[in-house]
Amino acid sequence: MGLFSKDIKTMDDLFVHQLRDIYYAEQQLVKALPKMADKATDKQLKQGFLTHLEETRTHVKRLEQVFQMHGTEAKGVDCPAIDGIIEEADEVAGEVADKSVLDAALINAAQAAEHYEITRYGSLIAWANQLGRSDCVSLLQKTLDEEKATDQKLTKMAESRVNLRAAS
Amino acid sequence: MGLFSKDIKTMDDLFVHQLRDIYYAEQQLVKALPKMADKATDKQLKQGFLTHLEETRTHVKRLEQVFQMHGTEAKGVDCPAIDGIIEEADEVAGEVADKSVLDAALINAAQAAEHYEITRYGSLIAWANQLGRSDCVSLLQKTLDEEKATDQKLTKMAESRVNLRAAS
Repeated sequence: MGLFSKDIKTMDDLFVHQLRDIYYAEQQLVKALPKMADKATDKQLKQGFLTHLEETRTHVKRLEQVFQMHGTEAKGVDCPAIDGIIEEADEVAGEVADKSVLDAALINAAQAAEHYEITRYGSLIAWANQLGRSDCVSLLQKTLDEEKATDQKLTKMAESRVNLRAAS
Repeated sequence: MGLFSKDIKTMDDLFVHQLRDIYYAEQQLVKALPKMADKATDKQLKQGFLTHLEETRTHVKRLEQVFQMHGTEAKGVDCPAIDGIIEEADEVAGEVADKSVLDAALINAAQAAEHYEITRYGSLIAWANQLGRSDCVSLLQKTLDEEKATDQKLTKMAESRVNLRAAS
């Protein structure tokens, strides 16, 4: 997509643009999650990041299926939002001295990524519905459900374990 | 906060860091929302952005109250995540030729910002609770409730009006 041309002419073009955006974002998260698992000290949190890494690999494959269903080449487009979220996660993690506080910061960073994905998949599903692409909807919905479940697991982990230790 | 020092030693430090991050983010949104209102063609959407601009100005003031309650100077810290979200919104909006499709893209962009704020205020409230700062919690909760309401209004507007027109 060129920055100075008006490449998005239809709702379908917007759908494909967003698909490319989230495809890039999921790939960046596949790179970021092992580093987050390395930094986490709480065993359950570390395992949570590794489990979500496997899910994220599946999300990449599902997006490739959606591209295929749509008859469009699977490729990413720069996504400054996810780059910013990951950059901020790295910066904050690098500034935290205490291990329990670091775990709280890592959960916060991961939830920012989850919420980004939740909003993007939400739009993609709404647009696919409008475009009559129920085949794409069902695949995208599976991923959205997993992102929401991960966000809820992270909240539970923060509230039941990590924040308590970090504030003590 | 220096990038090479470990400035965040306690949960309270993390709370203040996150407060500065969202303070910067809200200020950037005060600058971005009038531009989004200008670009929107749907009257209800345009008005929605202007209403949320007023709310966002209130959120900035509430954060200043929270800084004051905490006894910390109100100042921002770079937030690459919101910068990325706004940059992406500008890029995509610049690429859309059709007015109805542009409205759909603007809603999607605004929801990414809302979700970023929802996750950050969610963490701030959880941490303030752990730190026994119920005075800060009640102010932050007011803002979180307004961000969630805005997100829901945007979804409703997208589903009932904008996406229908964009896909037609």
